Amino acid sequence: MGQFETKLSEMGITLPEAPMPAANYVPSVRVGNTLFVSGQLPKLGETLMVGKLGADMETAQGAEAAKACAINLLAQVKAACDGDLDRLVRVVKLTGFVNSTADYGEQPAVINGASDFLGEALGDAGKHSRSAVSAAALPFGVAVEIEGIFEIT
Amino acid sequence: MGQFETKLSEMGITLPEAPMPAANYVPSVRVGNTLFVSGQLPKLGETLMVGKLGADMETAQGAEAAKACAINLLAQVKAACDGDLDRLVRVVKLTGFVNSTADYGEQPAVINGASDFLGEALGDAGKHSRSAVSAAALPFGVAVEIEGIFEIT
Amino acid sequence: MGQFETKLSEMGITLPEAPMPAANYVPSVRVGNTLFVSGQLPKLGETLMVGKLGADMETAQGAEAAKACAINLLAQVKAACDGDLDRLVRVVKLTGFVNSTADYGEQPAVINGASDFLGEALGDAGKHSRSAVSAAALPFGVAVEIEGIFEIT
Repeated sequence: MGQFETKLSEMGITLPEAPMPAANYVPSVRVGNTLFVSGQLPKLGETLMVGKLGADMETAQGAEAAKACAINLLAQVKAACDGDLDRLVRVVKLTGFVNSTADYGEQPAVINGASDFLGEALGDAGKHSRSAVSAAALPFGVAVEIEGIFEIT
Repeated sequence: MGQFETKLSEMGITLPEAPMPAANYVPSVRVGNTLFVSGQLPKLGETLMVGKLGADMETAQGAEAAKACAINLLAQVKAACDGDLDRLVRVVKLTGFVNSTADYGEQPAVINGASDFLGEALGDAGKHSRSAVSAAALPFGVAVEIEGIFEIT
Repeated sequence: MGQFETKLSEMGITLPEAPMPAANYVPSVRVGNTLFVSGQLPKLGETLMVGKLGADMETAQGAEAAKACAINLLAQVKAACDGDLDRLVRVVKLTGFVNSTADYGEQPAVINGASDFLGEALGDAGKHSRSAVSAAALPFGVAVEIEGIFEIT
């Protein structure tokens, strides 16, 4: 087990099998050393975390959903690296979409659920640029969707 | 006519002239072999496909709008490749924005209108990563807007 | 002072200190010559420009907010270039998110506040690809958030 997965294990996290896309596309595409990973949903095990921030979900729950998206992003990176997550050089960019009402303003705190997790798990390699915005709605009613760009070797 | 346009022709599709931007920007910018194409609207001929999913437009119509966006993306790629679409190596990433109500959840099925078309027209070169989310609203009330990243030679 | 900042000065604009991220991430990440800059908010000095287009803010005000985002994007590019903005080769891509009601359709005119400014300030280097969409809501209620991709040396 590599250094990143060892650290994840210490945090109590085992990466799931990389989720298959919900439709006719692929989980990630590599161009040079840049890996573009499809938007990931907050699904852990069989549980899809649905909800709308500002209506029926609290910010802290939204942050948990964002963390679930980040775990799935890492699962996709691992799959793209033939199972060796240590080939991840850097998380480059996250775009986080929050399913919220029109007057919700805590998108940064929600997406921190992903950012804090990546920072803790990956150290300097986890420091990324990002955007956090609200979507009017998300697939299947999920609370958060996050896509990512990664540098790999 | 190259292989990709021959296939499009068999599918009954002729790429339009690349649409001009709606404002003060350019249709695409190339960095190395990566081409970033501006968000394309579902305009075919003079018809701009407007509507809001979950309110006044069905998912199947939304998928048609997404296909129209994808056709315009290819028209932009062709223009960026000096008219030779066969210089397209790979569709890398699509981000699809669906104009929908707050409780709509079939964004993947809408954006499949683009993904299915690109897969059929381009084969392996059409397999891409993607995100599908809802926008609260879109320019001029269009139903879908899709931006894309492409690898070209 | 380099050519770009000289031009900005002629336009009456002094780049602010690059704003710190609102949460646990970094302002930008470089991969090769491509710089990914985090979503910037319309904050100039101590004023955060809040509002919702189609409800309590006019399109022209939204364009001013977009310009403020663009100024902050340039401040981040300058910081990533060790203070030398002339190392900016090209604005590659903007993604502009407009905080609007569900029936608002002038997103392009809002984001033109950023595009027109970059074109005037940077000339050919400011010509970029872009997308303009509405977000259901934005952090702290701001009117606009814009992220950018830049080519630097």
